[in-house]
Amino acid sequence: MSFIGVLGGMGPAATVDFMAKLVALTPACCDQDHLPVVVVTLPRVPDRSAAILGRGQDPLPALKEGIALLNRADVGLVVIPCSTSHHWYDELSAASHAPILHIARAAVSRVPRGERALILATRGALASGFFQRELAAWETPFDIPSPDDEQVLVDDCIRLIKSGQPEPAGACLERVLVKARTRGARTAILGCTELPLAAVYAERHSLGLIDCTLELARCAVEYALQRGWNCA
Amino acid sequence: MSFIGVLGGMGPAATVDFMAKLVALTPACCDQDHLPVVVVTLPRVPDRSAAILGRGQDPLPALKEGIALLNRADVGLVVIPCSTSHHWYDELSAASHAPILHIARAAVSRVPRGERALILATRGALASGFFQRELAAWETPFDIPSPDDEQVLVDDCIRLIKSGQPEPAGACLERVLVKARTRGARTAILGCTELPLAAVYAERHSLGLIDCTLELARCAVEYALQRGWNCA
Repeated sequence: MSFIGVLGGMGPAATVDFMAKLVALTPACCDQDHLPVVVVTLPRVPDRSAAILGRGQDPLPALKEGIALLNRADVGLVVIPCSTSHHWYDELSAASHAPILHIARAAVSRVPRGERALILATRGALASGFFQRELAAWETPFDIPSPDDEQVLVDDCIRLIKSGQPEPAGACLERVLVKARTRGARTAILGCTELPLAAVYAERHSLGLIDCTLELARCAVEYALQRGWNCA
Repeated sequence: MSFIGVLGGMGPAATVDFMAKLVALTPACCDQDHLPVVVVTLPRVPDRSAAILGRGQDPLPALKEGIALLNRADVGLVVIPCSTSHHWYDELSAASHAPILHIARAAVSRVPRGERALILATRGALASGFFQRELAAWETPFDIPSPDDEQVLVDDCIRLIKSGQPEPAGACLERVLVKARTRGARTAILGCTELPLAAVYAERHSLGLIDCTLELARCAVEYALQRGWNCA
């Protein structure tokens, strides 16, 4: 038996969403069937996207502190329900005794192979390129939003979720999805953990949506069940 | 700056509900405004209600293990979003360096003083009597559900939430609330952290509902903000 370690707080609502999905995906009839989890929410980690774009403080020391805290609690697996943080995936993995699941790998593995996908993520994550690399390895064509138009809506959507306004965030996301559909996308990757919280308030216009939070939770549950962490 | 420590997993959905309420109650415009939290979800703690009724394994060693884990993470406050566990409040407080908020105190302080209140909780919590003691100290008359009828519905409601069935749980709760209203109750204390998850699916029939999860979250946020834990 071991704990799933969650490095959370980026943002806090996305961490709650991850935990809700983890609980919902665990086959359970009573408390005792569930998986042991340690969550550290570290809201004070400097903005990840700004740092990648060269406009903010380096979040790596704070992220490593969180990883160290989880490893001190003896977790057997680490998940980070914040896509942009995966820019530092290699450094964080090197600093962690417990393996770290990769959110973009989890999400991309659910994209229908070969069907054009639109990547919705922070500007930092898109500049980092880890979603693009995973999709290329998955042999699937992709687009990213136009920076002066669609990406502005994605930025607004993320900001609105982080400030507790999911309904206007949903309206922003819906405008992006309409444009994506017009451009021929079949699938949109909600590649920032704030976006699934907005998607609840958006019509999806026949697009397949890949929820990176849900896919990370699915991988974590599979990993833990395979190892019997739900058994005393 | 310090962490709010959450001893969770009892049940897991109630812990997620607590975290969602903590995030919603925190005044914040961005990630960095939020409060640092460590959550340990320990689903394998033996059934608290059964133990109080002399029908199950003692959960105190597992609860103390969770308290120790949180204290090792250097939390400044502990909350336990599981009412029944408060039967062992004194023992857990004695074992914790960080103070522990009392969920029944948090909930009872929101009951209109002097207005008849119905306590909805597990059979174990009712047998322990901590809600009754808090209400007596608050000079407020109270009732508890009839054991062969209303309490059966409360038990079913809690069990259904723990097995992921909130809608039928809501129907059970609503039947209890209708009976409570007929008996002259003005307020019902949702004194088990599963019950607010059912209340979403129940008509409240003009009763004031006191959500013990929400009140515990409110006290935790107040405690942390007073101490500036939201500031870097």
